[in-house]
Amino acid sequence: MTGGADGRPCIFCRLLASGEARWVAREPDAVAFAPKPDSELAPGHTLVVPLVHCVGVLDAPPDALAATTALVQRVGVAMTTALGATGVVVLNASGPHSGQSVAHLHFHVVPCRPEDGVTLWPQARSGFRFPSDAPDPHEALARELAGP
Amino acid sequence: MTGGADGRPCIFCRLLASGEARWVAREPDAVAFAPKPDSELAPGHTLVVPLVHCVGVLDAPPDALAATTALVQRVGVAMTTALGATGVVVLNASGPHSGQSVAHLHFHVVPCRPEDGVTLWPQARSGFRFPSDAPDPHEALARELAGP
Repeated sequence: MTGGADGRPCIFCRLLASGEARWVAREPDAVAFAPKPDSELAPGHTLVVPLVHCVGVLDAPPDALAATTALVQRVGVAMTTALGATGVVVLNASGPHSGQSVAHLHFHVVPCRPEDGVTLWPQARSGFRFPSDAPDPHEALARELAGP
Repeated sequence: MTGGADGRPCIFCRLLASGEARWVAREPDAVAFAPKPDSELAPGHTLVVPLVHCVGVLDAPPDALAATTALVQRVGVAMTTALGATGVVVLNASGPHSGQSVAHLHFHVVPCRPEDGVTLWPQARSGFRFPSDAPDPHEALARELAGP
């Protein structure tokens, strides 16, 4: 269990320790559970979370990230077989200014079907622009990933 | 290379075969590249895709899914170091009625920063509801994942 930003234990670590959740799956390295009902984007919307504390995808231990995304897949497939979903949307926010609500890695898996009547795709775009003399951002990323 | 729904090769498989993309990373099992400029949610928005053809997270071979999400992580970290992002949003749509645009698994990795001035969280919720006498969807998922 790891401290949250307010010095108290992370609320997902507390939930994992308490065992009190609407569980969908409990596996050795990752679990799945229902979000608060008032935050569900669709009936069956599920959170998938590693047991080890990390803030998000940026700092997740590789093994924890792999176990978590493997459970995302199994939960998604179960949405098609058990709930009649035709597809899923997977959402994650990691780090400051991403809209992340709880600072413990969690993927949202949202079942989709023809009757939804909405799009879950973001309707807004960032207003930020790099200065016109800044390097192309994708070229900057490519250089960073290529290493020294 | 695998056929798309229209019988033609999948457009991401064609892109991978042609080598013609604004590449961010090319690794043995997954690659990252820039989306079309008019679909970028923020400057630096990047797509991460497995080389092997699969439609989405539901049918991805486990190794391909793990390699793709590992590259999502490296791209996200590079957004913080090379672009000054404070966080990232990771988005995926898989399967019919999910809003998926290209039927080849792709994660969107979107850099976030205080100056964005928007939220990328979905602003709408599904209007679908199960009949009142249907099983609780999270209990149905739990039973499905627990197996026979």
